[in-house]
Amino acid sequence: MHPTERVDLTNLCMIVDGKRVLVEERKNRSWPGVTFPGGHVEYREPFTDAVIREVREETGLTISSPRLCGIKDWDNGETRYMVLLYRADRFSGEIRDSEEGRVFWTELDTLTDLPLAEGMRELLRVFQEEDLSEFFYDRTGGGWEIVLK
Amino acid sequence: MHPTERVDLTNLCMIVDGKRVLVEERKNRSWPGVTFPGGHVEYREPFTDAVIREVREETGLTISSPRLCGIKDWDNGETRYMVLLYRADRFSGEIRDSEEGRVFWTELDTLTDLPLAEGMRELLRVFQEEDLSEFFYDRTGGGWEIVLK
Repeated sequence: MHPTERVDLTNLCMIVDGKRVLVEERKNRSWPGVTFPGGHVEYREPFTDAVIREVREETGLTISSPRLCGIKDWDNGETRYMVLLYRADRFSGEIRDSEEGRVFWTELDTLTDLPLAEGMRELLRVFQEEDLSEFFYDRTGGGWEIVLK
Repeated sequence: MHPTERVDLTNLCMIVDGKRVLVEERKNRSWPGVTFPGGHVEYREPFTDAVIREVREETGLTISSPRLCGIKDWDNGETRYMVLLYRADRFSGEIRDSEEGRVFWTELDTLTDLPLAEGMRELLRVFQEEDLSEFFYDRTGGGWEIVLK
């Protein structure tokens, strides 16, 4: 028998509208800054349902056919922390802010000029580059070394 | 605090060479039949490293830049069972069989004529269709209803 792992299951979704992308300015103290909407997967909830629900709760938009494009993960002590990364270019509804933070459209070209959340710059590469599927924090040295795979 | 889940972390990789695809005829009694190579993610192993290792162990090939394209998952009782689905079209080495089963190239067009493992026909759609990211077994009715999302 292989051991199972205790995992924090979460998601993050890059919503694209032509050259614009929807960002969220997170108030969350553990990961503040400009990032994408997303959140926790509920217990045994299908992953696709989870990202659609989180985007709706945090932005007001209803996305369809979100596409899995990568994973961010790291050894979080008691658990493995896992963020499923999605892209969506189909949606309906009007954007609105939530308690998680302000949401707004911005140009993808100038996204990195904004005060991005920690690691977001590297994470953007996983969202966009076909050769990359993982953002891994290597904790073996005791730090938080970003490795893109 | 959100609850964490206990998860079986595994992978499966569709290796494509033009119009051919590499398949494995699994001896495994819990999921016999023709499928793709893959296996268990080791404890806290980066996911990309895991699929590269499993493919090498089961086929002799060394893949590079495997691309995440979906997830198969279900409520497995004590755990959530999770299979990360990858595609790879870059590899080196020569194929060889392993204890897991015989491996051979076959035409993608006629793959479904082979004695596929349970659910493999539907799973192929998730590997191939951009609009699909998840193969979910809905167990709420007590059975194994396949839902593609």
